[in-house]
Amino acid sequence: MPSISNKGKSMPQSPIRKLVPFAEDAKKKGVKVYHLNIGQPDIKTPEVALNAIKNNTLEIVAYSRSEGSEEYRTKIAKYYSKNDIDVSAQDIIVTTGGSEALLFTFGSIMDAGDEIIIPEPFYANYNGFSTASGVSVVPVISKIENNFALPPIEEFEKLITAKTKAILICNPGNPTGYLYSEEEIKKLAGIAKKHDLFLIADEVYREFAYDGAKHYSVMEEEGLEHHAIMIDSVSKRYSMCGARIGCIVSKNQEVIATAMKFAQARLSPPTYAQIASEAALDTPQSYFDEVIEEYVERRNTLIRELQNIEGVRVAKPSGAFYCIAELPIKNADNFAQWLLESYDLNGETIMVAPAAGFYSTPGVGANQIRIAYVLNTGSLIKAVAILREALKVYIE
Amino acid sequence: MPSISNKGKSMPQSPIRKLVPFAEDAKKKGVKVYHLNIGQPDIKTPEVALNAIKNNTLEIVAYSRSEGSEEYRTKIAKYYSKNDIDVSAQDIIVTTGGSEALLFTFGSIMDAGDEIIIPEPFYANYNGFSTASGVSVVPVISKIENNFALPPIEEFEKLITAKTKAILICNPGNPTGYLYSEEEIKKLAGIAKKHDLFLIADEVYREFAYDGAKHYSVMEEEGLEHHAIMIDSVSKRYSMCGARIGCIVSKNQEVIATAMKFAQARLSPPTYAQIASEAALDTPQSYFDEVIEEYVERRNTLIRELQNIEGVRVAKPSGAFYCIAELPIKNADNFAQWLLESYDLNGETIMVAPAAGFYSTPGVGANQIRIAYVLNTGSLIKAVAILREALKVYIE
Repeated sequence: MPSISNKGKSMPQSPIRKLVPFAEDAKKKGVKVYHLNIGQPDIKTPEVALNAIKNNTLEIVAYSRSEGSEEYRTKIAKYYSKNDIDVSAQDIIVTTGGSEALLFTFGSIMDAGDEIIIPEPFYANYNGFSTASGVSVVPVISKIENNFALPPIEEFEKLITAKTKAILICNPGNPTGYLYSEEEIKKLAGIAKKHDLFLIADEVYREFAYDGAKHYSVMEEEGLEHHAIMIDSVSKRYSMCGARIGCIVSKNQEVIATAMKFAQARLSPPTYAQIASEAALDTPQSYFDEVIEEYVERRNTLIRELQNIEGVRVAKPSGAFYCIAELPIKNADNFAQWLLESYDLNGETIMVAPAAGFYSTPGVGANQIRIAYVLNTGSLIKAVAILREALKVYIE
Repeated sequence: MPSISNKGKSMPQSPIRKLVPFAEDAKKKGVKVYHLNIGQPDIKTPEVALNAIKNNTLEIVAYSRSEGSEEYRTKIAKYYSKNDIDVSAQDIIVTTGGSEALLFTFGSIMDAGDEIIIPEPFYANYNGFSTASGVSVVPVISKIENNFALPPIEEFEKLITAKTKAILICNPGNPTGYLYSEEEIKKLAGIAKKHDLFLIADEVYREFAYDGAKHYSVMEEEGLEHHAIMIDSVSKRYSMCGARIGCIVSKNQEVIATAMKFAQARLSPPTYAQIASEAALDTPQSYFDEVIEEYVERRNTLIRELQNIEGVRVAKPSGAFYCIAELPIKNADNFAQWLLESYDLNGETIMVAPAAGFYSTPGVGANQIRIAYVLNTGSLIKAVAILREALKVYIE
């Protein structure tokens, strides 16, 4: 029997993958499961996007251009201008989700054995894309007691070697919910310029900035044109996770030209999804206002309820729709499985994401979970009540 | 300025990429360009697929499962059963086009430095996926005088080293149009088993088998369950190139489990396109009958017209919708550019794909072009007439 690759063997599993069968079993037993484990919002996709698909008149579902259609890219550039990001269509390559944007970026700037510095906890699939690209993740620990703010810049500097090619941030962060300040971005820009590194910013949650804070993009930073690469996606912005449309944005034309070669090899991003995504750019501001208001209410509810549980420590998120909570237990992997396998409160339980999978340093975050507040406030209150009661009876 | 990767530098460009600006210039000058260079059919997508999209009732365009929806995979398995391929939903991972199926397969079975044997000429993007995966393509030359039939199996055997992990074929072939016989597949199966190699078959043109020949899949071959990996796509079958839906099919559960880790990292294939693709499986047989009849007529017309040009040699395709023609010139790259830049026949010219990009061995195929017969017979006749007249006046 021919053997699979070492790369394939080392590809990490999703942190919640092994919990899925337990969740299915719980449901089969008639237990209701509140899903706090995934970033799939319950928010409706804007009508304007749904209607563009229903009313499309394609007779041949043909390839689009590998870089995405000219019309769509021009319209994305206008959207960025409104967000103080001055780019044009030729600085943009449309990708199949933010995932592909990351893969193309990794392939374009790093070879096997190169290193990328990422503040942890970080989006777990950064590990997968790094493994697929043969790249080593070098983590810098950010701390729950600081709300997962940017670690001191000296911590980054200590880790830079001849193999370091880039720093990657997610802003606002999944799983931390932390929104970097302009000052923090400027610090990162400084170190990227000093050491000639790329600064990659995954900004797919841009709109989800709370408490009056303004999102500051790496693309706004003057003098960073050759270093800054922005990863974007329509998934969360328009609750269109299944569209699979994202983009790479950079003023560095060598990066764009190289990513374009990867884009050509896979022919084109999905055509229907581009129609929906182009139309979504006409989503009225009122949609976002309502969505943000809803998320802020959910966040406030969730944090308040979590803080009422003895022994639980929680970082207050300033953006996105996740938070990390530290529990008075040792191993959140076991706890998450137990919640599904052996616990229910009046026929209901919760599924959470153990946070260890969001760290690259072994052992760190073992007592933490990530909660996605993608459920309405009523469900969140019930879900946290289940967590509280479960912690009272859980024996490790 | 930070530097791009060596991998990015070595990523090959599409064989027609550098011709695109010349085609655009020709059009600006008012010259009509017949596109024989691309595999984008002019055939309409089945109504049943188009309507499924128009009538969809999604309110949230959510992620699907990473492996594709259960319903769709179950329905694909039924389609395969009808084609004498006995697989079930768990042997299938739905991907974003055949492109992603190839990338996941390469990642799952090969590490950097490994080798894959491919009969050339081959689909140019196999080079791109190999470069992106750090894998070396080892070509075996197939010859126009044999219609690009399978080279003698000893030719493969000579090239097998400790690093060889797989043999990749495209059946029927792009760019050759050659349909492998059952006997040829059995020979390949034999060598795969003998040397413990994977046999990857890109079978996206399965339906396009002409002259009463029956397509024989690697998945039909008994005893090859651990070795056979099939790559598939809806792109050509239903003229839905822009959907970007394909799949990996294998009875080797280790391959599927590994590919699944790559699939999870990118979350899910596109949701709208899965709706269209699932509906497309209900396309009536009459659609295919008409399409095949149309392609056979085009092929016959094209080959007849080409054979009427002195000095042109052409392999008669038995499948797909491409053919390779050898021209009485030295360098088809220059000729293809000249056709767009400096030639027209009554205000019309043609764009063809120089075939050198489909070979991995330097210098081979320099006098060949690939013609995609994706235009109606009237246009094909005019296009070949342009080629004939152009060859009369072309000076190298």
